Order: sequence, then structure tokens, then C-alpha cells
Amino acid sequence: MRKFIIDTDTASDDAVALVMALRQPDIDVKAITVVAGNVPLAQGLQNALYTVELCGASVPVYAGCAKPLLRNLETAQEVHGHDGMGDIGLPLQGRAPAPGHAADALRQVINANAGDITLVTLGPLTNVALALLREPELAGRVSRCFIMGGIGAGHGNVTPTAEFNIWVDPEAAKIVFESGLDITMVGWDISWQYATFDATQADEIRRLGTPLAEFVIDIQKTLTDFSMRENALAGFDLPDPITMAAAIDPSICKYERYRVDVTTGAGLARGITVVDRLGVTGREPNVNVAVSADHAAFVEMLKRAVS
Amino acid sequence: MRKFIIDTDTASDDAVALVMALRQPDIDVKAITVVAGNVPLAQGLQNALYTVELCGASVPVYAGCAKPLLRNLETAQEVHGHDGMGDIGLPLQGRAPAPGHAADALRQVINANAGDITLVTLGPLTNVALALLREPELAGRVSRCFIMGGIGAGHGNVTPTAEFNIWVDPEAAKIVFESGLDITMVGWDISWQYATFDATQADEIRRLGTPLAEFVIDIQKTLTDFSMRENALAGFDLPDPITMAAAIDPSICKYERYRVDVTTGAGLARGITVVDRLGVTGREPNVNVAVSADHAAFVEMLKRAVS
Amino acid sequence: MRKFIIDTDTASDDAVALVMALRQPDIDVKAITVVAGNVPLAQGLQNALYTVELCGASVPVYAGCAKPLLRNLETAQEVHGHDGMGDIGLPLQGRAPAPGHAADALRQVINANAGDITLVTLGPLTNVALALLREPELAGRVSRCFIMGGIGAGHGNVTPTAEFNIWVDPEAAKIVFESGLDITMVGWDISWQYATFDATQADEIRRLGTPLAEFVIDIQKTLTDFSMRENALAGFDLPDPITMAAAIDPSICKYERYRVDVTTGAGLARGITVVDRLGVTGREPNVNVAVSADHAAFVEMLKRAVS
Amino acid sequence: MRKFIIDTDTASDDAVALVMALRQPDIDVKAITVVAGNVPLAQGLQNALYTVELCGASVPVYAGCAKPLLRNLETAQEVHGHDGMGDIGLPLQGRAPAPGHAADALRQVINANAGDITLVTLGPLTNVALALLREPELAGRVSRCFIMGGIGAGHGNVTPTAEFNIWVDPEAAKIVFESGLDITMVGWDISWQYATFDATQADEIRRLGTPLAEFVIDIQKTLTDFSMRENALAGFDLPDPITMAAAIDPSICKYERYRVDVTTGAGLARGITVVDRLGVTGREPNVNVAVSADHAAFVEMLKRAVS
Repeated sequence: MRKFIIDTDTASDDAVALVMALRQPDIDVKAITVVAGNVPLAQGLQNALYTVELCGASVPVYAGCAKPLLRNLETAQEVHGHDGMGDIGLPLQGRAPAPGHAADALRQVINANAGDITLVTLGPLTNVALALLREPELAGRVSRCFIMGGIGAGHGNVTPTAEFNIWVDPEAAKIVFESGLDITMVGWDISWQYATFDATQADEIRRLGTPLAEFVIDIQKTLTDFSMRENALAGFDLPDPITMAAAIDPSICKYERYRVDVTTGAGLARGITVVDRLGVTGREPNVNVAVSADHAAFVEMLKRAVS
Repeated sequence: MRKFIIDTDTASDDAVALVMALRQPDIDVKAITVVAGNVPLAQGLQNALYTVELCGASVPVYAGCAKPLLRNLETAQEVHGHDGMGDIGLPLQGRAPAPGHAADALRQVINANAGDITLVTLGPLTNVALALLREPELAGRVSRCFIMGGIGAGHGNVTPTAEFNIWVDPEAAKIVFESGLDITMVGWDISWQYATFDATQADEIRRLGTPLAEFVIDIQKTLTDFSMRENALAGFDLPDPITMAAAIDPSICKYERYRVDVTTGAGLARGITVVDRLGVTGREPNVNVAVSADHAAFVEMLKRAVS
Repeated sequence: MRKFIIDTDTASDDAVALVMALRQPDIDVKAITVVAGNVPLAQGLQNALYTVELCGASVPVYAGCAKPLLRNLETAQEVHGHDGMGDIGLPLQGRAPAPGHAADALRQVINANAGDITLVTLGPLTNVALALLREPELAGRVSRCFIMGGIGAGHGNVTPTAEFNIWVDPEAAKIVFESGLDITMVGWDISWQYATFDATQADEIRRLGTPLAEFVIDIQKTLTDFSMRENALAGFDLPDPITMAAAIDPSICKYERYRVDVTTGAGLARGITVVDRLGVTGREPNVNVAVSADHAAFVEMLKRAVS
Repeated sequence: MRKFIIDTDTASDDAVALVMALRQPDIDVKAITVVAGNVPLAQGLQNALYTVELCGASVPVYAGCAKPLLRNLETAQEVHGHDGMGDIGLPLQGRAPAPGHAADALRQVINANAGDITLVTLGPLTNVALALLREPELAGRVSRCFIMGGIGAGHGNVTPTAEFNIWVDPEAAKIVFESGLDITMVGWDISWQYATFDATQADEIRRLGTPLAEFVIDIQKTLTDFSMRENALAGFDLPDPITMAAAIDPSICKYERYRVDVTTGAGLARGITVVDRLGVTGREPNVNVAVSADHAAFVEMLKRAVS
């Protein structure tokens, strides 16, 4: 069994990624740590706990940071719904997280499985940065870290230059990208190019007929509207699931290795993942940047997870 | 006759662009204004004057700003040679510019041809910004402004995010991009994708056998080395000539209209041309961004110019 | 006769400074150049023209820049009144400036009187910066430049770190402070400590009974309210007049020579005049910073001017 | 007994402050937490452990962060000596800290003494920020927090605008200043004005003849040279001890309550403690800023501590 630990600001696409990991037979999800991002922390916790319950799993879910290291929290509730799960009326309340802080859980699980654990991050990197600040040696004990965040090539979704997860807490991202972690970055460019579902494709999944199949489509309700209206897509795209797919089976994507630095300024200079393709910075490569993905293989994996 | 005014930090690729404009039968180049950039101002002046002379033209060449508005001058002499013309021993000295300042010449020529003049910029935008600061109404009197500068999509050449001309004087670029000028931006991405010449292609031009044919190839000596070594290209690329080609015949490129803002920070946040493809800034489009070019048509135009 | 040229964003305290210069028997004010600042350019022009007329002078008044080099204009109409002159009903309209641009007038007058002309600036430094960008050699031809702007020591008035004139156009200030001009800076700290007038003192001047005596007090109506409410002063303070007093008679202030740099960031990092008292930057001193003033001598000079 | 916890980047003036606290009869120092700053972490640990031993105390000393949250470590070894203790040959090696991380020790001690514990910080605020990031509620459980850091009024010592402790880790300082802690800031301005010792005054203390009296003077060897040469002082100044004196007896200083914000930019915009004296930011006051101190009372307290 491969061991995973997942950090997530659980909203509608995170939930699908969690389903994929929790239903993957050869993966043991040791813990889920929640961070503020798409939705406030308390909502993200409920969303994660609900998803775990729906999968019939018994993975501990930990509460982490309620805001970015240095900035005020900006959520994406206009994207994923007020409850982050499409506002379709799910009973997202009353479940209790495991005791302890997400940053401590990250440290504990990683240390207990040093050299044999994959970290997947689906939200702002606040929890992970906090764990690394407290214990910098942690970076060397993670086998691989898959990050949904940033832009490998092309345009952002919050600003023309930045993707939401990195933009929300650029200082945390900078700490993580400079930590020495073995990082694979799946940017939003991979998502909108290789993980978009139009109405027909969504319907095809939903008609698999299982509760999970209906769940993973139905919670994308507000995301679908937003993606078509603001991002000019043909449907909704699933950044966190395509990242989870890469973590489950790295051959889903192709990668190139580059130096990636994160800008921590304001306005258009906030949270850019600067990919140094020509090596003009003279800095050592630190990130495997996903440059393409296999859409069909991804859809297949998703279908398997919810069948 | 169409009327052009050209602002240039004359080095090896600017020179080719000047040749193309000066040899174009239906174009009347009213003035050439020189700015510090690739090389210090005095060197750029000599390079422009030499090129005009070689073309047998009698266009006035004016000296402009010797440094960016707010920053120290950074040249590209490691790219184009110490003399900016490949260090091949050309007699680049002793010629005298026309009296008067480039910014005043820009104003005078544009005002004298209001509504019927194309501005082509091949260097940092210091001179143009200064003219616009002095007379903001100028922007409305230029028919079209073709700018070699910035990045439409992809990576930069000075930093991973920035192209040389914009990076050298980002404050000038910001002023120009926000001035109301009818801007067409030909970024470095167009150049390295559609205006690169490998040894065979270069030789094909040189073997046209005219003094101009030999000149336009021979002065790329240091540029060729640099482009292959630092930019991972198959030969040298000609950003200024492909921009001039677009100014001469706009159908050479395809364009999309976007909001483009210039960042004026430091490090990786210096001189980015932020292209807002999704409209997330909510700001009005202000630039026609070249998104592709016709390599064959460009080469044909270049050959015609030097034949 | 000593020769002065005055750049001003004419509002209520600028007007007093203009009166002082125009009424000084041994001073020949060659020109007044107006810049946007306290009020929009058109209003500042009218205010300057009205003041010149009231003094019975025939100094040409030129229109300059309508906005800062790179930023949007921010006025101080909540400080000086909507018309900048206390909103007391003065007929501030219909007068025409001299033809030509302020930046050109600055160059012309300074060049015509090279080495024998004092420049006094009472507003944002946009016009002066533009003149220096166009002709950097100008800096060496000004005998002395007295700048009302910045903070020599202590707190600002727009932000805790910045004074209005520098804050409005920090890029222009940076250009001017680095130009090589022989600068004497009279900061707002000198004004509120040595140039504040309470009701009794104001009344004492007003009761001199001349039209000018009434004018210089009456136009401070909105300034008085603002200064007492927002700046915790006992009355209104007159930054521009104390600067003009120093230009007229430098012995009015005491000075220390320091390196002064201007920050061009955002928020609290916008427009700080950083005075390097300990020499920790290792940069050459470039500014005589006024560190105290003789209040009594200043009041005396002001009374003489309006008597 | 009053309870203290002290965070320190132990160098020569920190050591004196530790002596003062450890020798104060009515104060129980619960723990000393060490952070990188004046010297690298390992050196600071040895310096703190040596000082505790010299005082015959048995306070646990914990190792904390080896570098600032986001920036590279910059030390002050040119100020305090390579070993931070004047390079006078003290045996500063081989002692072992208590097990556990400083940030955890801070949380443990503060939580165990909630509402009844004074936090005194003598170095960069990295450890304290980390504790607050992990447990934001901690801020409300500290009775008072005395911070040696920043500038209340006047000039800095690292840059013209910044004091060393804040400048080294401005992001940590920002987190701490915005945390809700009840902060009293003793800036470097208080130190050089009220805590400077010239040769005669230093000798007077040294001639008290105890090992501690000799220790607190002898370790200032390199600091003395630096302070006189670079800071234009008459001798060495003791920022950390004057802060500790205020923590022991707050009546040693006078205070005013203001909003204080920390800038996190680069160059001159790095690590400024912006004190909003006029309330122009409209933000709630968050810091008691020391504005003067009683030099004689401070010297008396110091003498008592080493007698």
C-alpha cells in the first residue's frame, strides 16, 4: 500500500480528488489536513468530513490554519458556492475533526512514514509552510509532493498572472517551493486544458448511477456556471482531481524540470509561479512542472473511482 | 506614401529593421529617434547613422534619452557585441545626428502628420514616454504604434517573466501602454518562434550578394552565439525586423486584443507585460497582441529589402 | 536683483508664498510654473494668476503637468477647499496663462539665467522632473533649489511616513532628488513646528488691514479647520511660505546635510523622504535638510510682505 | 513571583538583559527561547546557556528557528563579535539546550500561565510569530509583551529607516504586531538616547568587582567600537537591557499608545515600524511606544543586578 497525506481547502473539486484517493485500492490515506482557502476553515472541515463519510472511509481529518500566514483570507465562494459544495443542500455540518492541529498531523504522519509518504496539496500552502517552518527537515522525509497550484504556462484565474491557491498565500507558497521538497506542480493550465468536462461528459459520469458518481457531478453546480462565464470554458474543470490523478499515477502527465519561484508582491505581482524555462536566473531547478496530461486516462480513473 | 517614425536603440537587429523600412518603396521614414538600450546612446546613434548611410537614405537621426526615466541603464552588449553591431569592425564613429532632442522630434513629426503617421518602437520606451509626458494629446495623433517589446505568451529573455526593452525601462513602458496610443505589440515570443534564422537560412540571405544582404547577416555575429547558447535557439532571431514587417504589412501577424499592463517592481516583478486573456482585471483592452506570424512572408520581405 | 522661478500647485499656502516672493523688493520672479497637486491644474492656474494680479505683478504663469508622471492625481481639496483657496468666494476664473508648457518655461528661464537662478518648488515635483528628464544638464545651472516637501524628521501628513507633495508624485521626487540639483529641503516638520499660526497670531496679521493681509489669512479658512482637526495643531500652518522665507533669506532656517532618498512603493512605502542621519547607506549627501526655523523672523518677513 | 519568558538572539546586550531578569528576586524566568539573529542559532544557544550558568540559574533554554520566516539570515557579528559576546575568549561551547522547539516551549509556558506571564523579546520575532501562527489564541494569554525592536521616533541602525531585530524578519514582526498581543515597544531610539554608557560609566559598573559586573562590561568590547564608529555614540548602548528594565519596572519608561505597522518590502522599505502619531491611517492603536526612559533608574537597576 502506498501512503498518502492530503492537505485541502475542501470545496467541490477537492471533494472529487478526495474521493479518488480514498477509493483507490492500493493507497492508504493516512490523514486529511484542512486549510482555509476556497471556503473558511470550518466549512472546509465539514466538506472534507462529509466526503470521507460518503466514501465509507475512516481517515482522520485535522483542522489547520484559518488564514494565510501574513494576509487576510480570500475565499472562492463565488466559484464553488457559499458552502463550497455547489449549494445543493448537502448536510454539511455537525461532524467533528480529529483532535490536534493540521501542521502537527502533517509532521507526525510524515515523520512516522519518513521516505515512504506522498504529500498531495489541493489548497493554499499555509499548513504545509507552517509544518516546514516548525521542522525544516520534514522536506527531506516526503517522497514526493504533488501540488495543485500555480501556472506552468499561460494565464491565471484570479489575476492574469496568478492561480488561486498560490495567490491566496504566496508567502506560504514561497516557503514550500524553497523548502527542498521534491515538488511536482500541476498548474491550473493543466486543469483547463486537460480536465474540463462539458455537459455531455459530465452526464456520462453522472449516469454511472452510484451515489459517488452523482455526488462528484452535482457539487460542481456553481463551479460550472463560473467556469463557463468567467474562464471561457466549455464546462467545469477539475484542478484538484487531475492533480490527484497525477499523484496516483504520475504517467497521467508529462513533466519538465525547472526552477520555479513565487512572487510575494501586490496586485499583478502577487503569487506568480515564475517558471524559468531558459535558465536565465541561474538557479537550480526545484520543481517538476506538469506540461500536459492524458485526458482520457484521467476520465477513466475518475470513472473507476466513482463506479 | 505612408509615413513612419522609428524609435530605436540601434543594435544589430534594429539595423535590419531600419534597412527594411528605409528600402520599402511606399514608406517615407520621417525621422529616426535613438534611445539608450542595447547600447549606450552615443553608440546607438552611430549605428543608426551608419545604417541610414548604407541605405543611401537621408533621414534625420535624433539623439534622445541616455538613460531610463528612473533606473540606471542596463545594456545588452553581451548579446549584440560591444558596438552593438557584432563587433565585426564596422567604422561606427564620427557621424553627427540632427540637432534637437528625440522627444521633440517625435512630437514635431507626429504633430505635423497628425492622424497619418505610424510609430515603430524598437527599444526601451523612454523617448516615447517623455514625449507623451510633455504632450499627452500626442497619443491620439499617431495612427498606429507598433512596439517590439514584452511577451505576448510564454517566457522572457532577461528574466523568466520579462523581455529586454520593457525590462530596461518599465516605467516608460507603463506610461506608453496607458497613454491611449493605438498599440500593436510584437513580443519576443513572436520573434523566437517566427523570426529565427539558422545557419542555412542566414546563408541563403547572405548569398543574395548585395552589400545590404551581407550587412544584415554579418552584424548578427555575437547575437547568433548568444541566441544559441542562452536562448536555446537554432540560430539568431530578429525581433525588431519582424516588428517592422508587421508595421509595413500588418497581415504578416495575427493579433488578439487584450488589456496589457506593465509591472514596475524589482526582480521577477520588473517589466512584465501582463496580458489579461480572460478579462479578470475588468480593464478595457488597450493592445493588439501579435499571437503568430507568417515566417515565410517575413523572410520574403526581408530578402526583398536587401536584394 | 536675485532671480527666482517658482513651481507651484497653487492653493492657499502657495498663494501666501507667491505673495512673499512677488512683494520682495530685491527678488525678480522670472516665471511661475503650475503643476497639478493640491488642486487640479486648471484651478491651480487660476489661483496663481489671481494671486499675481492681486500683487500687481506681471510675472508669466505657465501651465504644466495635469497629473503625476506615473500615478493618478490625488488632490488636497479637503484641506484647502474645493477651489484650493478656502472656498471664500474669490473670482478664480477666466484668467489666461502664458503660452507654452511649464517644463519648457523652466528650461528656458534656467538656461537663460544659468548659474544665477533660484528654483523654489511648492508642489509635487512633476514639472521639474519632466524638465530634468528632457535636459539633465539643467540641474547644474540652478544656483539653489528650495523644495517644500518631505519630512526631515518625524511624522507625515498623508501617511504616517509621507508628506503630500512627495507622496503625490514620488517618482518625480526621486528623479529630482537624484538629479544633482543643489537641494535644500524644507519638510512639513519645519512647517508644523515653526510656521503654525493660532487665532491670535492670524488675527494680528489680518489686522494689518491691507488687502494682501486679509487675503493671506482669509484663504486659510478650510486649512485652519483641517489642521486643527486632523493634524492636532493650534491653528493653520504654512509650509510653502516658510520654504519661500528660507529661499528669500536662508538664515531663517538651520540645516544639516544628509543623503535623502525617496521611496516609490505603495501604501506606507510611498513617498518617504529617507534621511540618512548615520550614513548607513554609504551614499553621498545630496540635500540640505532644514532642521529648525526662526518663527519670529518668519512672521516678521510675512508681515513685511503684506504690509 | 512574577513570571517571565524571554525570547533572545543572545549576543552581548541580550546577555546583560538575561542577567537582569535572572537576578531579579521577584521574577521567575520560566524559560529562555533562542532565535537566530545577532548570531547563528547554535552560537546564540551557547551564549544563553553560558549566561544562565554564570547566574547560577537553572532556567531551561530552548532552540528555535535557525532563520527568518521568509528571508535569509543576516547576523550582526560585526557589531557583537564573531561569537556575539565580544570575542573575549569565553568558553561558549558544549552546553546542551532543553529538548523541544522554542515555539512549542513558548506555547507551553504561556498556556500553563495564561493571563499571568510576561513575554520579553530581545531578537527577531521569528519564534514568537511561529508560535502565534500555530496557536493564534496565544496572544490573548500573554499579560504583556515587551519588545526590543523598531524605532519609536528617528533613525534606524541597519538602514536609515529600520532597526536590526525588525529588519531581520519583518514578516515575523508584522505577524506579531497584528496578533492582538498587548505590546510595549522599546525602540532603538530609547536605547541610544537613554541607555548609552561611556568609558567612565562602564568602568563604574565594572569596578563593582563581581564576576557578573565584569562580564556585562567585558562582553561589550566589539559593540563599543562599533557604536562609537558607526552610530556616533559616546560609548556602547544596551537596547535589550533597557527593554528588560521596562519589563521589570514599567515606570522606567514613559509611553504613548499608537498604531504601529511593519513594512515588509525591500531596501529602504524593509522592516520599518511605522508609528501613526496623527492617526492618519484610521487604524486602532496596538502598541505602547516607549518615548523616553529614566537613565539613572536604569543604571541603578543594572548595578543592583550585578552587585
